[in-house]
Amino acid sequence: MSLDPAAAAELGTVRIVGTGLLGASIGLGLRGLGVRVLLHDPSPTALALARDVGAGEPDPGDEPVSLVVVGAPPDVTAEVVRAELAAHPQATVTDVASVKGQIAAVMPGIPGAERYVGGHPMAGRERSGPTAARADLFLGRPWVVCPSPSSPERHHPRNETVRMLALALGAMPVFMPAGEHDEAVALVSHVPQLAASLVASRLVRAADPAVGLAGQGLRDVTRIADSDPVLWAQILSANAAPVVNVLKDLRVDLDHLIVALDALRHDEAVGARAAVAQVIHNGREGRERIPGKHGDPQTRYAVVTALLPDSPGELARLFDDIGEAGVNVEEFSLEHSPGARVGLGSVSVLPAARDVLEAALTAKGWHVVS
Amino acid sequence: MSLDPAAAAELGTVRIVGTGLLGASIGLGLRGLGVRVLLHDPSPTALALARDVGAGEPDPGDEPVSLVVVGAPPDVTAEVVRAELAAHPQATVTDVASVKGQIAAVMPGIPGAERYVGGHPMAGRERSGPTAARADLFLGRPWVVCPSPSSPERHHPRNETVRMLALALGAMPVFMPAGEHDEAVALVSHVPQLAASLVASRLVRAADPAVGLAGQGLRDVTRIADSDPVLWAQILSANAAPVVNVLKDLRVDLDHLIVALDALRHDEAVGARAAVAQVIHNGREGRERIPGKHGDPQTRYAVVTALLPDSPGELARLFDDIGEAGVNVEEFSLEHSPGARVGLGSVSVLPAARDVLEAALTAKGWHVVS
Repeated sequence: MSLDPAAAAELGTVRIVGTGLLGASIGLGLRGLGVRVLLHDPSPTALALARDVGAGEPDPGDEPVSLVVVGAPPDVTAEVVRAELAAHPQATVTDVASVKGQIAAVMPGIPGAERYVGGHPMAGRERSGPTAARADLFLGRPWVVCPSPSSPERHHPRNETVRMLALALGAMPVFMPAGEHDEAVALVSHVPQLAASLVASRLVRAADPAVGLAGQGLRDVTRIADSDPVLWAQILSANAAPVVNVLKDLRVDLDHLIVALDALRHDEAVGARAAVAQVIHNGREGRERIPGKHGDPQTRYAVVTALLPDSPGELARLFDDIGEAGVNVEEFSLEHSPGARVGLGSVSVLPAARDVLEAALTAKGWHVVS
Repeated sequence: MSLDPAAAAELGTVRIVGTGLLGASIGLGLRGLGVRVLLHDPSPTALALARDVGAGEPDPGDEPVSLVVVGAPPDVTAEVVRAELAAHPQATVTDVASVKGQIAAVMPGIPGAERYVGGHPMAGRERSGPTAARADLFLGRPWVVCPSPSSPERHHPRNETVRMLALALGAMPVFMPAGEHDEAVALVSHVPQLAASLVASRLVRAADPAVGLAGQGLRDVTRIADSDPVLWAQILSANAAPVVNVLKDLRVDLDHLIVALDALRHDEAVGARAAVAQVIHNGREGRERIPGKHGDPQTRYAVVTALLPDSPGELARLFDDIGEAGVNVEEFSLEHSPGARVGLGSVSVLPAARDVLEAALTAKGWHVVS
């Protein structure tokens, strides 16, 4: 995927309302593609910063625009969309809020609602605000497009406009009704976030020696627990119904698990061990549905792990040697065990390449451990 | 950490009972350090394979041994320990089972129980069996040592023997009573495993477009869901009480969360939004307790992300350029978005090195996106 000037050429003048990370990144990307971008933000500081990073010019307010992109905080997006529909009676209005049903629900009855097309670019960064903007923030990411119920056809010109916006910025447009989108993000984003937080919460009062035994598994499960409580309270509040439905399903499984483990604890184990195994089995089955690289069904890679002295240049040497072996790296992760002055570099490769790579690295003097 | 011949020299002749992945890896490591290793396994095939990979010689049964290491499956470990204590009345007997309380509980009354010292090397691989054995499997990993209640002093000779075994193999010995160990692994390993499985289970019946929106967050949370149901049913059954306690705590938080989100869904939102934010906040606080690299409190690294064309040699070129910049890589991950023919390489570095690295990579023509 790359930025697409041909798609950008279809857009006309674009007004961006709300110049935070997403709004400013959209402006920056479009500007680089030659699109005229007009910016607006209730905060003069945010507006000036967005202009300074090159996201566009402050909107003088006297120019017709063909597309308005609302990048306001989730809890005021619907109100801003309504105001923009009224102020720009010819324009298509879209937004970037991460929950779509709440906005779609207030549209009926709003004058011009047929010109609103919901959007959700699934991209973000750890940093926020216009100074964190990147023209390439959306490269290769899904950008959900939720057509208005009055023009659901994929090729309706207003839907096409938002699709072109996504394509211009190198994203992958995915058409989906608002309700379906909200259920999907509850499942693949909001509930995993909460599960990570609930697991990590258990560590707050844990003894030091216990957390000292933490390994890569715990680190992976809890990585996204490192999130902003205020932003997440907004997102989860806006998507409460789909999230609570998934959580209640999860609680049913959790309750069964607790009953089974309680039985095992008291040696009333008929069927209990099978019930526990079933939980792990189901998880494995669900895990296999997650698409991997290139949108193909998740590929099983072979993993070759090498010991890496903890000093500069070692990774470069490793990848030189991998490159010389003619092997393509599908995934790579570097792990340090607590207390160890040596790292483990895990190289995922296509299964057919495993033996070649092991032999090549060993020949180069690497300590291959798997 | 590295293999330690001085520690190995303290061990005398070692008998290993059960030549699966852990038993054979211990044998292989010790053999390389010059230790005499005698092997035993009820399966002649497993025994022959372990001998062939170089883990030791089949035990002729007529030689005195100073240390017996039991690497049997978790559900028969206690019985094998009892038999080894009887058969080798001078030897220290240890094991490698991942749950310790169940074994400690049956020890009182067993003749020779004072010669048993529990062990749990926290290492493993995706593959199992003697052919997957690695001499360096334990390098830099915690190796929990659970002294017998009759000789709890750290420097008791039998505890020292097991400590020397861990040190010989490059592991980090961690002394801990059996009960404390089991509570710790429930918290840092068993419950995270179950949470990952419960989240991944939600995907089994999800629609394709929904799982198509999956991103790195979901992948991380569910990575360990890809586990063996039979092995995990054994482990969880053996540690049912501590696991169920943590799960019940987690369920209390989950119930509060469901009540809060249900209230938000019906607009009875007094305090509910704060309750949701609190869950995320607690998770963040717990996450910060996980030790990072080198056993120090988790370091906050700065992350520099570069776009990587999906072709051989690009990673080598990247790490060459990082090395030339004189920057040490603390962590590295390579991510492919579904459908994208470009990867994102995220380089974690000490915060002070971020600007240097960004500038150096940009100067070398890399597309740095954060």
